[in-house]
Amino acid sequence: MWRDLAPVGRGSDGGYRRFAWTREDHTLREWFAGEAAARGLDLTTDRAGNQWAWWGDPDTTPGVVTGSHLDSVPDGGAYDGPLGVVSAFVALDRLRARGFVPRRPLGIVNFADEEGARFGVACAGSRVITGALAPDRALGLRDNDGLSLAEALRAAGRDPELLGPDPVTLRRVGAFVELHIEQGRGLIDLDQPVALGTDIWPHGRWRLDFPGEANHAGTTRLADRRDAMIGLASTVLAARSAATRHGCVATVGKTMIIPGGVNAIPSAATGWLDARGADETAVRRTVREVTEAAADWGALVTEESWTATTRFDVGLLAGLRRVLPAAPLLGTGAGHDAGILAAAGTPTGMIFVRNPTGVSHSPAEHAERDDCLAGVEALTAVLTELAGTGSTGERP
Amino acid sequence: MWRDLAPVGRGSDGGYRRFAWTREDHTLREWFAGEAAARGLDLTTDRAGNQWAWWGDPDTTPGVVTGSHLDSVPDGGAYDGPLGVVSAFVALDRLRARGFVPRRPLGIVNFADEEGARFGVACAGSRVITGALAPDRALGLRDNDGLSLAEALRAAGRDPELLGPDPVTLRRVGAFVELHIEQGRGLIDLDQPVALGTDIWPHGRWRLDFPGEANHAGTTRLADRRDAMIGLASTVLAARSAATRHGCVATVGKTMIIPGGVNAIPSAATGWLDARGADETAVRRTVREVTEAAADWGALVTEESWTATTRFDVGLLAGLRRVLPAAPLLGTGAGHDAGILAAAGTPTGMIFVRNPTGVSHSPAEHAERDDCLAGVEALTAVLTELAGTGSTGERP
Repeated sequence: MWRDLAPVGRGSDGGYRRFAWTREDHTLREWFAGEAAARGLDLTTDRAGNQWAWWGDPDTTPGVVTGSHLDSVPDGGAYDGPLGVVSAFVALDRLRARGFVPRRPLGIVNFADEEGARFGVACAGSRVITGALAPDRALGLRDNDGLSLAEALRAAGRDPELLGPDPVTLRRVGAFVELHIEQGRGLIDLDQPVALGTDIWPHGRWRLDFPGEANHAGTTRLADRRDAMIGLASTVLAARSAATRHGCVATVGKTMIIPGGVNAIPSAATGWLDARGADETAVRRTVREVTEAAADWGALVTEESWTATTRFDVGLLAGLRRVLPAAPLLGTGAGHDAGILAAAGTPTGMIFVRNPTGVSHSPAEHAERDDCLAGVEALTAVLTELAGTGSTGERP
Repeated sequence: MWRDLAPVGRGSDGGYRRFAWTREDHTLREWFAGEAAARGLDLTTDRAGNQWAWWGDPDTTPGVVTGSHLDSVPDGGAYDGPLGVVSAFVALDRLRARGFVPRRPLGIVNFADEEGARFGVACAGSRVITGALAPDRALGLRDNDGLSLAEALRAAGRDPELLGPDPVTLRRVGAFVELHIEQGRGLIDLDQPVALGTDIWPHGRWRLDFPGEANHAGTTRLADRRDAMIGLASTVLAARSAATRHGCVATVGKTMIIPGGVNAIPSAATGWLDARGADETAVRRTVREVTEAAADWGALVTEESWTATTRFDVGLLAGLRRVLPAAPLLGTGAGHDAGILAAAGTPTGMIFVRNPTGVSHSPAEHAERDDCLAGVEALTAVLTELAGTGSTGERP
């Protein structure tokens, strides 16, 4: 399966560009449908375009779901997302090879637009079906070319009118376990191949729009300028400083400068702030200070997304720990669809697989084959427990 | 003529995007050729693609040339460049209407790629023919899509091999007078419609490449980061501060962030510095300090262009002052093809027309009709003097 996925959206430097509802994404969705069909699974697509492949009928009994996403950040790695989807298919193959007869349906999911690389809202697919992202707002999101999500969906052959909360789909999910490459150095330090997730740090995105006045870079006195770049640069540094003080992380990884000419004073500058941390109050304080710093330059600050601390289901986690007693526990600063589903009340857990570079959202992201196999083994054991005996993770 | 030019490359906000060797540029070049043909002028295109329309044979006697450029910065105004070309045609029409018989040939020029908006080097057309920009370097310049100038020229139906110094063309230019919209507030303060140029400030462009390491914005501790954006932001502020201290202007109006995802730590950030000032030592000091600030972040600094102070021809200026005794004298922080030709030894002068907003490189750039007519009248008088009596501006 890796061989099929490897070339899709890969740049000359090995980085991936797989953005929601692009040609690359379409190829990946076709691949998912093909893998589901090859296993005789029933494929459904929900109101946000997330793909679900079912073994058994989840409308009779809510099922156990695993999976992840196939899209990427710009110049991302091969594992963030796809490792969870590929591991899900491999685990299902192993269960079947062992003659496992599920007591509950088993599902594999491919969430749409997890990275938010194109339209700016992460986990858009899971947010929409849980109601965390209103369809009107989602459809109006625009990519860097000015194309709205509504237009992108239409171009992908989907009806934008369908987009919205999907309780029917969610009712089918009795429990969700997402396997994911670790995006930090936790398992390197612990010298373990696999960990269980405890919680997702509070995190959010803010758009900072700095005003300016276009003018000639050579003939306008400094005193007469309103250069939007100066406010943006100051605020980038203010964000780093506030995050350091409050023990959080803050990043400005994307900017837009208008008009963007070497000899033109910027008339507008936009930066996107990503802020997270183990402690919610500290993150909120950081963002407040950045907002104040930006306001000093007349900037408009818009909260594009905010997700409070998400603790994974305690009962489910206890069950996973019985199955994988050696696996350490890890929290994470990365957002995941698992966090969105957990926040919406679905019993949810996560399995992390060691990343020997500790680097993520980069072509340097990596997973050793043995660790991937340890991940599949852990996932297989978990599915056996959850779908076989029903002793843990069932809705009350 | 304005009516023909108005719609070419105009965005919905009124700003122009007329970049070298694009469809828009081609349309403007066709327009120029058409205006030349309508007046029975001989059109030649030199080795850099600059267009020259001649009344008379400049290979017999070097001629008097006026004109400017038709390309624009991103979201630029309507007058920067085109005012000089349109005024040239109108002045020629007036001379003819008055029955003027030139003693020397008269030429009108449209310089290619004056703004450098696409390939990063301003006045590329005049730099190439004067030898200030080597053809190898010019052909390797790339636009934001990675297309080289060589490829762009080929796509425009031109042979890149032709690009290079063009002494034959330069020999035809006995004197050059460029009329241009003023790009500052000098004529507003002086309450005059038209001024004569004395010199062009020293100015240049530097590319600052900051290294970083791609990683996940949520899971990488601040201490473990190499975030290219932080160095860029610091250096933007250092540039403003150094320019203030040294009484120059410095601008970072264009940036490029890689990979550019909201949740990806930038692995590379590039900013372009534009620095100018009345005093060459002060500009050099400013750039040295910015370079040192950038080097603290491991940045590579490349000088993309540098033009020392250019004083316009003293004899020619004296002649222009006799013709236009009321016109005040102005220096300028903007680069012009007139400056490149002056540096290469062609007797050169400039006429500035008042800009009531003082704003340039912006849709807000403006010129009143009466001031435009005053500019044409001044240019007509200057051409009458230079091409009629030959008393000033001739090569020794």
